[in-house]
Amino acid sequence: MIPFVSRADLAEQSIWIKHLSAAMPEEVIVPFADLTPEQKRQCDIAIVANPDPNDLLSLPSLQWVHSVWAGVERMMNELSSPSFSIVRLVDAKLAETMSEAVLAWTLYLHRDMPSYAKQQAQKSWFQKPMVRAQDRRIGVLGLGELGRVSSQRLVANGFPVAGWSRHEKQIEGVECFHGEEGLALLLKQTDILVCLLPLTPETKGLLDQQHLSLLPIGASLINFARGPIIDDEALLNKLEYDELSHAVLDVFAQEPLPENHPYWCHDSVTVLPHISAPTNPVSASDIVARNIQQYRLTGNLPPAVDKRRGY
Amino acid sequence: MIPFVSRADLAEQSIWIKHLSAAMPEEVIVPFADLTPEQKRQCDIAIVANPDPNDLLSLPSLQWVHSVWAGVERMMNELSSPSFSIVRLVDAKLAETMSEAVLAWTLYLHRDMPSYAKQQAQKSWFQKPMVRAQDRRIGVLGLGELGRVSSQRLVANGFPVAGWSRHEKQIEGVECFHGEEGLALLLKQTDILVCLLPLTPETKGLLDQQHLSLLPIGASLINFARGPIIDDEALLNKLEYDELSHAVLDVFAQEPLPENHPYWCHDSVTVLPHISAPTNPVSASDIVARNIQQYRLTGNLPPAVDKRRGY
Repeated sequence: MIPFVSRADLAEQSIWIKHLSAAMPEEVIVPFADLTPEQKRQCDIAIVANPDPNDLLSLPSLQWVHSVWAGVERMMNELSSPSFSIVRLVDAKLAETMSEAVLAWTLYLHRDMPSYAKQQAQKSWFQKPMVRAQDRRIGVLGLGELGRVSSQRLVANGFPVAGWSRHEKQIEGVECFHGEEGLALLLKQTDILVCLLPLTPETKGLLDQQHLSLLPIGASLINFARGPIIDDEALLNKLEYDELSHAVLDVFAQEPLPENHPYWCHDSVTVLPHISAPTNPVSASDIVARNIQQYRLTGNLPPAVDKRRGY
Repeated sequence: MIPFVSRADLAEQSIWIKHLSAAMPEEVIVPFADLTPEQKRQCDIAIVANPDPNDLLSLPSLQWVHSVWAGVERMMNELSSPSFSIVRLVDAKLAETMSEAVLAWTLYLHRDMPSYAKQQAQKSWFQKPMVRAQDRRIGVLGLGELGRVSSQRLVANGFPVAGWSRHEKQIEGVECFHGEEGLALLLKQTDILVCLLPLTPETKGLLDQQHLSLLPIGASLINFARGPIIDDEALLNKLEYDELSHAVLDVFAQEPLPENHPYWCHDSVTVLPHISAPTNPVSASDIVARNIQQYRLTGNLPPAVDKRRGY
């Protein structure tokens, strides 16, 4: 008996329960609301998607929870020091989908699609000078699974890529920087900045006035990570004075983006409704099932989220 | 003494002459207008970029001309049966640039960028269902150098690709069709159609009402070849009735696209000012120089344009 714990509506919950049940027919997956008091006492595992923390705290035998999401920072915030471990979704297909989005919107900026859209609106026919991929420097912030696969995909398509992570990493074909000093070095040599960082106390507001000012004049930015990593006021300011030329934003401090937010109507901002890498319930369910089957067999948990680092 | 024959203005001609002279310092490259009558009598080679046909016909010893452009259909039309051979630019870098454009605008359609742009204009936050690359069928018309490299780049990025050419061809990883019957088969199974055909009497108007009707409902189209290959009225009709969902057009029957043309304001058409694969004068000059040096050494011409096929 494994409860599915989620604040999503029942229709969305039932889609997940259907796919999870198909992936592990040996388990009984039920909505949290259907648990009897006795079942609640016995549960050692829960599968979660944006869960109510009180629901989880009502399960005294809980050893670990498996999120079907890659981002678990909200859960980490709401559960200050849980007695159970948190496992987030690490889905190779998710990294593939994200790397496709990174490539798609990098090419969108590289091939001047925002400028040509403005030209079309003005019926203007003007060929901008062509920049070769080899001369367009991409900087990727965050070198976890998503950052690594995305960087390598950009390299495979002809772009020189530099990457940055808090701690030292090495990725073939990618110039790797780390630490605060490394961040400054990377920003100074980046034409298109791609943010794939996890949201932690250390990355919140990382792209502030000071860091954004290190980018070359005319650089662009893509945020496919979490909204609060960017200081919105600082970014709007940079766009206003043409110090940055364009921002592609898929994530926001508040989602859906509020109707009166200046990003909506800004002609140097592309607003996307959090679609860079939607979880595919079929492949995600397979991964959750494999991890749970492994635990039943060996008692070993998959790598859990580090409670200090927050990811 | 090799004349550069072009209707371009002198400033543009001098850029070409500078790069061509640097690539083959052993030759003297001059604007056609600077030739003496004696030099005109002796010229065996000319380098051309949209030349005035009368200029070429005034060179009695001309054996062959090398175009710095990939497309030579205008020259073929204007010179009905020239006594000299025509060599067009086959530039591996050009194919690379074109394949980048094909990938960029295929991803633009695949990841629903036109829809998300419309949503942003309406401040609408809605996540469209995600289609996996492996489920998005791309059809490439034209399997010359540009078609081959573009198809392989799409395959490398996860798309299933079918290709079509007038005569039978084989490309690894690409399902190849040919002939009229093959065209119908390809169109019926294509979600995004990419046109890279040469303009010839046979391809003029090829994408007419009848052929466009074979595409599945909701398919999209990219034209990076030549404008007259598409029947504009038929295309506008298909877009009007939502039988096709979007067209990315980089080439037009008349360029620049006339101000009153319905494409400019059509919200299912992306108008680009012929920028898919601009010739790079540096790499193009190197190729022209290598071909001319080879000819001086061996007397062999590079493969010339077939006067019957027109490319």
